[in-house]
Amino acid sequence: MKGGSQMDAEIQQRIEASFARQGAMQTMGAELTRVSHKLVEIELPFHEKLTQQHGFLHAGVISAALDTACGYAAYTVIEPDTSVLTIEFKVNMMSPGRGERFLFRGEIIKPGSTIIVADGRGYALGDGPAKLIASMTSTMMVMRGREDIRE
Amino acid sequence: MKGGSQMDAEIQQRIEASFARQGAMQTMGAELTRVSHKLVEIELPFHEKLTQQHGFLHAGVISAALDTACGYAAYTVIEPDTSVLTIEFKVNMMSPGRGERFLFRGEIIKPGSTIIVADGRGYALGDGPAKLIASMTSTMMVMRGREDIRE
Amino acid sequence: MKGGSQMDAEIQQRIEASFARQGAMQTMGAELTRVSHKLVEIELPFHEKLTQQHGFLHAGVISAALDTACGYAAYTVIEPDTSVLTIEFKVNMMSPGRGERFLFRGEIIKPGSTIIVADGRGYALGDGPAKLIASMTSTMMVMRGREDIRE
Amino acid sequence: MKGGSQMDAEIQQRIEASFARQGAMQTMGAELTRVSHKLVEIELPFHEKLTQQHGFLHAGVISAALDTACGYAAYTVIEPDTSVLTIEFKVNMMSPGRGERFLFRGEIIKPGSTIIVADGRGYALGDGPAKLIASMTSTMMVMRGREDIRE
Repeated sequence: MKGGSQMDAEIQQRIEASFARQGAMQTMGAELTRVSHKLVEIELPFHEKLTQQHGFLHAGVISAALDTACGYAAYTVIEPDTSVLTIEFKVNMMSPGRGERFLFRGEIIKPGSTIIVADGRGYALGDGPAKLIASMTSTMMVMRGREDIRE
Repeated sequence: MKGGSQMDAEIQQRIEASFARQGAMQTMGAELTRVSHKLVEIELPFHEKLTQQHGFLHAGVISAALDTACGYAAYTVIEPDTSVLTIEFKVNMMSPGRGERFLFRGEIIKPGSTIIVADGRGYALGDGPAKLIASMTSTMMVMRGREDIRE
Repeated sequence: MKGGSQMDAEIQQRIEASFARQGAMQTMGAELTRVSHKLVEIELPFHEKLTQQHGFLHAGVISAALDTACGYAAYTVIEPDTSVLTIEFKVNMMSPGRGERFLFRGEIIKPGSTIIVADGRGYALGDGPAKLIASMTSTMMVMRGREDIRE
Repeated sequence: MKGGSQMDAEIQQRIEASFARQGAMQTMGAELTRVSHKLVEIELPFHEKLTQQHGFLHAGVISAALDTACGYAAYTVIEPDTSVLTIEFKVNMMSPGRGERFLFRGEIIKPGSTIIVADGRGYALGDGPAKLIASMTSTMMVMRGREDIRE
C-alpha cells in the first residue's frame, strides 16, 4: 500500500487496523491501496456476488466503497482519540459499474472540527483510461468520548 | 411474501425473478418480503460479514438494500418492456445499524414517465418498536429499448 | 397564522421574530402560515422577480423556502438557548414551479440532540388539488453557546 | 465578462440572454462573470435583502446561484435546440455566508446525452484568499422538443 509522504505512521496503522475489522469490506474483497493526508483509495475486483440484476456492480457496493474511502480520509485529519460517523451521503451513478477492477477515492474538502465533508469518486479500471462511474459527497461528524466507536 | 391486493401477478414475478439475479442481495442474505403498488420491502438479518469497523451494519449495505427496495418499487409503476436505472440517491444515517433484523421500504413519491423519485426508510427490528436508522431519496430514470438492462 | 395546539407560545414567538429578520424571506414575499410541533409551513405568492429563465419559480427560491420551513420546524424541538445551522440539504424538483401560490412544509423526522433531520415538501396551489413540485431532505446541527446565531 | 477561448459566441450569447431573463438573478443582483467550456461563474455582492435570520447569505440564495451556474455550464455542452432542467441537487453549507462578495462556479463533470452532472462551489471573496462556503452536486436532464423551456 502506498502511504503518503506526510502521513503519520500511527494514523496509517490505525486506518489499516480499522479497515481490517470491516466485515463488509472483507465480504466485498476490497483492498486499502492508498492512505495519504486527506486522501484514501480503495480498490475492488469485480465479482458476481457484488452485482445488481443487470450484472453490474451494485450501487450499494459502490456506496460502501466510497463511504469507506471518505471515512478513512477523515481519519487522516482528526485527533487520534476521536472517530467519525457518517451522517449522510449522496451518490451520483454516472456509468454502469462494468469492469474488471474498480478504484474508489475519498478526499477531504472541508476538515472541520465537528463536521467533515469529503468528495468521493469511483472509477472502472481497464485497458484504457479510468472511467468515472460514480461521485459521492459525504458529511461526517467527529465523535469524541465514544468508546464504542473508537476504532 | 406479501403481495399487495392491487398488484399484477406478472409484475410481482418480474420483480422476484430480478431480485433473485442480484448477486449483492444474495451475498447480503436479503429477502424480498413485500411487493405492492408503489411500495416494496426487503428484510435482512444482521450478519458480521455486513459490518463497518464498529460492528454496525455498513452504510453501504443499508444503501444497497434501500436502493434495491426503491428500484423495485419503481418496477411496479413502469411498463413491462422498460426498466429503471438509479441516477443518484442520498441517504441519511439516523442511528447506528444495530439490531438483529432490518427492514427496508422503498416507496414511489413521483411516478414520472422519464424520471421516478422514491423515498426509502430503513428500520432496525427487535423486541420494541421498529427504530428508524436511515432515510433515502432516490432518483431513477426509465430506460426504454435497452436489452442489456431489460430485467 | 395557525399555531398547533401543543405549541408553546414562546417558541412560536421566537420563530415569528426570527422569520421577520430574514431579508430573503421578505424579498421573496414569503409568509409564515403554520407553526406546530415538528412542523412549519411557509406560503409564497408567485412573482416574476422569483423566476428562472423559463418563467417558473427558481429552484433556489424553492430551496430557500423549504430550507426555512425545515429550519423553523427544528426550532420547535430544540432548547430555547440553542439554535440550528443547516449543514446540507438535497432537493428534488418534481414539477416546474408553475402556479399562483406555493406552500412549503418542513417536518422533523429525526429530532436528535446534535443532528436534526427534516423532510420538506413544496406544492403549487391552485383550483385543483395541491401539486407536489419539490421534495427536500435537510440535515441541521444544533448550535450551543453561539451568540452570533442565537435567534 | 470573460469568455473562454474555446467558447462558441452563439453559446455565450444564448447564456447571456437566458441569464438576463431570470427574475431571481436580477432580484439577487447576480452577474454572469465567466462562461467557458463546461464552466460558468456568477458573482454576487452581499445585500441584506438576501439574508437569513443571523444576517448571513441565505442558503437558498447560495443554492439559486450555484444551480444557475451549474445550469449554464450545462448549456455549454448541449445542442443549441435543446435545454436542461434541474432534476435535483444537493448543497453542503461549509461556512456561514459572510462576506462582501461571493463567487459561484458550476462545472460539468459528466456531460451525458440525457443526464448531465455538475459540481458547484461557492466562495466568499474578500481581502484574503477566497473562502469555500458551499458545495453542490447537481443533476440535470437534457430536454428536447419543449418549446416552453427552449431558452
